[in-house]
Amino acid sequence: MKKGFILWFTGLSGSGKSTLSKMVEERLLERGVKVEVLDGDEVRTNLSKGLGFSKEDRDTNIRRIGYVAKLLARNGVCAITAAISPYQEIRDEVRRSVDGHAGFVEAYCECPIEKLAARDVKGLYKKAMAGEIKHFTGIDDPYEPPVDPEAIVHTGDEGPEQSCARIIKTVEMLGLVPPVPGDDYGIDEEKAVAARLRDLGYLG
Amino acid sequence: MKKGFILWFTGLSGSGKSTLSKMVEERLLERGVKVEVLDGDEVRTNLSKGLGFSKEDRDTNIRRIGYVAKLLARNGVCAITAAISPYQEIRDEVRRSVDGHAGFVEAYCECPIEKLAARDVKGLYKKAMAGEIKHFTGIDDPYEPPVDPEAIVHTGDEGPEQSCARIIKTVEMLGLVPPVPGDDYGIDEEKAVAARLRDLGYLG
Repeated sequence: MKKGFILWFTGLSGSGKSTLSKMVEERLLERGVKVEVLDGDEVRTNLSKGLGFSKEDRDTNIRRIGYVAKLLARNGVCAITAAISPYQEIRDEVRRSVDGHAGFVEAYCECPIEKLAARDVKGLYKKAMAGEIKHFTGIDDPYEPPVDPEAIVHTGDEGPEQSCARIIKTVEMLGLVPPVPGDDYGIDEEKAVAARLRDLGYLG
Repeated sequence: MKKGFILWFTGLSGSGKSTLSKMVEERLLERGVKVEVLDGDEVRTNLSKGLGFSKEDRDTNIRRIGYVAKLLARNGVCAITAAISPYQEIRDEVRRSVDGHAGFVEAYCECPIEKLAARDVKGLYKKAMAGEIKHFTGIDDPYEPPVDPEAIVHTGDEGPEQSCARIIKTVEMLGLVPPVPGDDYGIDEEKAVAARLRDLGYLG
């Protein structure tokens, strides 16, 4: 059985987690990989109704996503999670929980909050800055960027195709999905991914 | 990919759901089937901390178990659930949610409440009858036995080996796990399982 893994997106609201998770899902399904996307909003409906946005409730929500993702990943599925998941401690806790059973790939959607607030696709930043929404990550609630994520995508500067390609290349190089001949992301991109993974102690 | 399925145990507290789910898990693992057991107590810790035992909270808990079991089953896993799950409506809701994606096998652990109260392995019935535990299924909270379960095991009259064998035979006959030559449960047992499944409209 092919080893499963968790592809754990993290990033501020509007930074592209949901968009990228759906794009990556499509690309992996084309390769015959089994995929489930656990999107933040969907999971809140199905697993965490009644929870709010205090640190405790956020941690509980993320632990639940991690629990379900782990069950899937250790059965050979690629579980893609797309929740803000602001705290490093809980992300690390999930990473440790799958250790040995499945892979864990942290993908950081990096985008300056000024750009996100200017774009404000859902109108949430405006409300948060006006104080109409409390506990909004990046405004009046903390966000801890990942320390050593396997992949960083700069969704303020690059298009989603490029971000998606980097993530696919990362899981390929980690041996979690089979490479597809001719599916080329450019030699520079490939070198950058390899360098990052080598720095993190992967790739021998 | 082999089709996954949910093996959904239901029955009163102490009726053998956890014991049988572990036995069935072992037997299926021996056959190379991927299995996850979602035990009632474990799931309450991981997915439903904070929920109580009102009808609404019970329904929420069961829906969460159903959601996770569905994700597993549609990826080729046998998801075994072992929660009391007292309400037919919610069990049917879960059954409908997996329709077409995976199999659903309801296994009813039938045992008269008098026997369970006399046995009282965890001492819970005594407390419930003394009013020290409220909302205890079968005492001051309802239990709705399944209308048309795929398998019924009579855990007050038969040993766990026999109950386990009947359940394995049931999932075999439904084509959900490969039969093992020489793994014989007796011709009468086999006929009884076939008759039940035929009555329910399976087996053409």
